[in-house]
Amino acid sequence: MQTLFRCLFCLGLILSYSLSVVPQSIDTTTRRHYEKIAEDIIYSGLGSGKAYEILRELVSTSGPRLSGSPQAAKAVEWSKETMEKLGFDNVHLEPVMVPHWVRGVEEASLIGSESKGNESLTICALGGSIGTPEDGLTAEVLEVKSFDELKKLKDQAKGKIIFFNRPMDRSKINTFEAYGGAVNQRGSGAVEAGRVGGVAALVRSMTTVIDDFPHTGAMGYNDSIPKVPAAAISTKDANMLSELLAREKTVRVRMKLSCETLPDVESANVIGELTGSEKPNEVVVIGGHLDSWDKGQGAHDDGAGCAHVIEALRLLKELGLKPKRTIRVVLFINEENGLRGGKAYAAKTRPGETHIAALETDAGGFTPRGFGVQADSIRFDKIARWSFLFSSISADRIRKGGGGADISELARQGVPAIGLNVDGQKYFDYHHSDHDIIDNVNERELELGAISIAILAYVIAQEGL
Amino acid sequence: MQTLFRCLFCLGLILSYSLSVVPQSIDTTTRRHYEKIAEDIIYSGLGSGKAYEILRELVSTSGPRLSGSPQAAKAVEWSKETMEKLGFDNVHLEPVMVPHWVRGVEEASLIGSESKGNESLTICALGGSIGTPEDGLTAEVLEVKSFDELKKLKDQAKGKIIFFNRPMDRSKINTFEAYGGAVNQRGSGAVEAGRVGGVAALVRSMTTVIDDFPHTGAMGYNDSIPKVPAAAISTKDANMLSELLAREKTVRVRMKLSCETLPDVESANVIGELTGSEKPNEVVVIGGHLDSWDKGQGAHDDGAGCAHVIEALRLLKELGLKPKRTIRVVLFINEENGLRGGKAYAAKTRPGETHIAALETDAGGFTPRGFGVQADSIRFDKIARWSFLFSSISADRIRKGGGGADISELARQGVPAIGLNVDGQKYFDYHHSDHDIIDNVNERELELGAISIAILAYVIAQEGL
Repeated sequence: MQTLFRCLFCLGLILSYSLSVVPQSIDTTTRRHYEKIAEDIIYSGLGSGKAYEILRELVSTSGPRLSGSPQAAKAVEWSKETMEKLGFDNVHLEPVMVPHWVRGVEEASLIGSESKGNESLTICALGGSIGTPEDGLTAEVLEVKSFDELKKLKDQAKGKIIFFNRPMDRSKINTFEAYGGAVNQRGSGAVEAGRVGGVAALVRSMTTVIDDFPHTGAMGYNDSIPKVPAAAISTKDANMLSELLAREKTVRVRMKLSCETLPDVESANVIGELTGSEKPNEVVVIGGHLDSWDKGQGAHDDGAGCAHVIEALRLLKELGLKPKRTIRVVLFINEENGLRGGKAYAAKTRPGETHIAALETDAGGFTPRGFGVQADSIRFDKIARWSFLFSSISADRIRKGGGGADISELARQGVPAIGLNVDGQKYFDYHHSDHDIIDNVNERELELGAISIAILAYVIAQEGL
Repeated sequence: MQTLFRCLFCLGLILSYSLSVVPQSIDTTTRRHYEKIAEDIIYSGLGSGKAYEILRELVSTSGPRLSGSPQAAKAVEWSKETMEKLGFDNVHLEPVMVPHWVRGVEEASLIGSESKGNESLTICALGGSIGTPEDGLTAEVLEVKSFDELKKLKDQAKGKIIFFNRPMDRSKINTFEAYGGAVNQRGSGAVEAGRVGGVAALVRSMTTVIDDFPHTGAMGYNDSIPKVPAAAISTKDANMLSELLAREKTVRVRMKLSCETLPDVESANVIGELTGSEKPNEVVVIGGHLDSWDKGQGAHDDGAGCAHVIEALRLLKELGLKPKRTIRVVLFINEENGLRGGKAYAAKTRPGETHIAALETDAGGFTPRGFGVQADSIRFDKIARWSFLFSSISADRIRKGGGGADISELARQGVPAIGLNVDGQKYFDYHHSDHDIIDNVNERELELGAISIAILAYVIAQEGL
């Protein structure tokens, strides 16, 4: 795109036709007051580089930070120190016991394939899996696309590695919906394999791209069904394996996993706030999760969310904004494989305190598009009427439904739950894989997320719900 | 983000509250008819990998394709063959003479810096620049942030390299506006340097990031003012040079450029269409530009645009949609440094033919957000009423103002001009640099752009304007 035309283009955008509707229920003075504050937050946050610097510090201090790991402990320490340095109020830890699963060795290969010999396969253990016998296991592979198909083929399943190979549906606009349509293979594949006498589950990675990265994630067992080890295979190798099965009929694979679950470890949610000047006991939570999987750097999932909420509070503080109600940053621990942090936060008795809203950001550091709100109609409308504050950054889609895993317990208690919605087209390219690194997070897109949260948290803290 | 919560999240989105307004002027049957077609286009286009494959072929066949270069000639040939293979109607070239500037050697270094010796600088010639003397030129550096500042310092400018170092304003929400606020340094820096007796212009790269990539782009001369060579310097080296000037006061730089302008070369706009079944002489143009700068692969600028419009027509054809009016793909040549293709297309007499709209895509292959429309109010409203067709893919912001450089001549003739607007936060990370490669284009985001264009072009071709 060349130079001269740009002037015309910019002019066009300046003269652009705004589709935003300003609700009548907000008087002009109030509207202008918050518009000015939103402008200040945008001006201070965008291009400052601060949110990215927070994320860079987090991932370079801790790396990936699976619950119970020494890296997660470092991340807890760093978060507390960072909030203290930034001058947040009431910075403290709320201890919680978390699971401690460790990955260990992971290897797989074809065994004696006619065309490919003993070619290796790119796999990784699923989080929570048991290991294989020490020398590994070798078995024939049975490919299925669904649990129903597995039921039909159960007579052929005994002693085999069950290969769950239903792809995420790439034609879905909402990639999370595509994920939702495939992820039961990862969550319950081991149970279903065990149920029919299989010896292991090998699950196609949950991603919209065809690449060499296996994507991990949580899986579970059912105590009444034999437990078998479970691993994810890269989409490239899943396609190759499927083609090989069509050609050679009998395909044998060797898998070796030494993963195991160790005793629980003490960890903590990390908390800091701007204490409300008028109603300190009415609290707006803004949170992300501090733990990640042990792949990549957990940069989008959910380092970005942690950077969002720390930066949102930092921005309000920098601008000297003193909210009437308390805005509380909560970095939840153990979202990925237990939700212990979210549950403990919600279960804790906090005498005299009321949560008026809880917001979570856990969909990556991409350009924000708006918010999803899980609340009754009156409270939904009270939030949606502020959409005009986000129109200049095109993040004004406020929709019903949403929230976040860590705040789901609060939502069950009746607290309005809000999720930051971002452009999710690329999320599953990176999700739970070695690809989830800070190089794949854009500085400006991350800043816009933090800005969106700062604006919404502030207006709720001022106006209530 | 973990598994179980996803179901809740997806459900939330399915139940989401739509903010789209369906205008009363479109009856229910018509609305449903086009909604169904939009759904079909989305379903066929998203996740198909076709748009990305087109882009991959273009960049692997031609590489970067500066006007007049052998690579641009290859791109013209590939485009014609591709449209023929896809079965487009009336595939042909419209020849046009284009400039032929070649880059040659480019080197720069500090000379005798107290702290840094003769450290090299990362630069590239600006497109259209003359070269330096064969042995290069060495001169003191004078830093300015604006042409006004240069006027004030003109007594110190004689014999110096004028270093234009005003950054793009990263606090602007619209990165194109930030670009518009800085790019006169690149376009006119050489003229202003020549005017005050400077010997060269060294211009801070037009980008929102601080990195090692120099970003090229067009510059011009004024025949009444001495011509001096002009180069872009990476933002990292621009910052370093500025700090050095503050510290050492006198800083000398050596620059060597062997770029030159050769005689014009014959090239062509490449055209293919779906001929209208009822009103073939009423034409909707959808275009991008085939040329690029000679850095990276021109993947976002504007390989993505070429892939968008070829894929849009391919999708309509695949679905068996036969538009009443003609939809014409035009791949314009020489947008970057001359606009000869756009001008020639608009100047050509086409007896009996009327252009009812022209759409250009030249802002990168990022997630589409909507369209910018340069037209009278009646036609604007006629386009804007279709916004509901784009709400499922969140690309429904239809705004006044916009278009594209190549269709600006058509716009001047009164043809409604439409630009595809995309999420532009990252555009200038890559723009005109070695960073503009296909690895930085996302398959799904590219597909959504092609889908948006296919839907809008089809509805205009059916309903007229």
